[in-house]
Amino acid sequence: MELFEAIHTRRSIRKYQDREVPFDLIKKILAAAMMAPSTGDARTWHFILVTDPDKKARIREVHPYVKMVTKAPLGILVCGDLSREKFPGFWPQDCSAAMQNLLLAAHASGLGAVWTGIHPIEDRITRFKEIFDLPDHIHPLGLAVIGWPAQERTAEERYTEECIHHNRWQDRASTGI
Amino acid sequence: MELFEAIHTRRSIRKYQDREVPFDLIKKILAAAMMAPSTGDARTWHFILVTDPDKKARIREVHPYVKMVTKAPLGILVCGDLSREKFPGFWPQDCSAAMQNLLLAAHASGLGAVWTGIHPIEDRITRFKEIFDLPDHIHPLGLAVIGWPAQERTAEERYTEECIHHNRWQDRASTGI
Repeated sequence: MELFEAIHTRRSIRKYQDREVPFDLIKKILAAAMMAPSTGDARTWHFILVTDPDKKARIREVHPYVKMVTKAPLGILVCGDLSREKFPGFWPQDCSAAMQNLLLAAHASGLGAVWTGIHPIEDRITRFKEIFDLPDHIHPLGLAVIGWPAQERTAEERYTEECIHHNRWQDRASTGI
Repeated sequence: MELFEAIHTRRSIRKYQDREVPFDLIKKILAAAMMAPSTGDARTWHFILVTDPDKKARIREVHPYVKMVTKAPLGILVCGDLSREKFPGFWPQDCSAAMQNLLLAAHASGLGAVWTGIHPIEDRITRFKEIFDLPDHIHPLGLAVIGWPAQERTAEERYTEECIHHNRWQDRASTGI
């Protein structure tokens, strides 16, 4: 799929077919995630594949917006590794760039996915660390829930001039550059 | 450009030709940035286009890694709007996803770009807020420096099995799913 088409047609997908995602395809998506830029090229990310029904059931108990995970073939928990940071505090940006690559790669592969947030909500962080035996230096950023889509969502344009400013803050966008 | 090709061939580019970036192309790249997912669909981003030589010179004084900005035709300062957040604390993730779309869109358009970090370094935040007259609720995430590339960088694979885990944390990746 062409890049701009992938970016403009990707939507959050929360309903999935009862069908596995082959491991080769998961690897292709993770390889795309790992191509993200990172601060000082520190590559602070880890990915925990979630396929175990017991883990999915426990996740569902501790996060208000992941009910669909028990019907999804796959979750991918994106985590930051603080021991790898060259510039402290930047891991959420590295991992968010990786997550965005992951979502685009899933969409371009015909899968549907949704990014559910964990960091910086303390209670969710603690519970996910317990469920996945994360050591102190590994922090969960968010969970991508992934599967073959069982819903269709049309593309939605989000472009707005009001978010564009020229050389300084302006409450309304100016008309030229 | 095909999505996986764009993801796998994008590199940070820091040397640029002395040539403008047309505003129509800038808009296309910003439209891609604004298609990012955001927490609660809050779209917490703003983009300040930096073309003024005086602003570029001031940026260069306050950030150790943006020397190239004075020779680049364009900077895009990606900012978070805290007044738009539905879930407090998530704006850096929203804006990082937008930044990643922006970098991919620039690359697929033949441009070169590099993401330089600002948030969460307090001193840089303060100085960028001064330079761009940012109100209290607008926080700079990072600056993308952009131009037509004057350097070639070969693709570099970053895939590593050690970052992949199955259903719980493991210090080494397991072999199956």
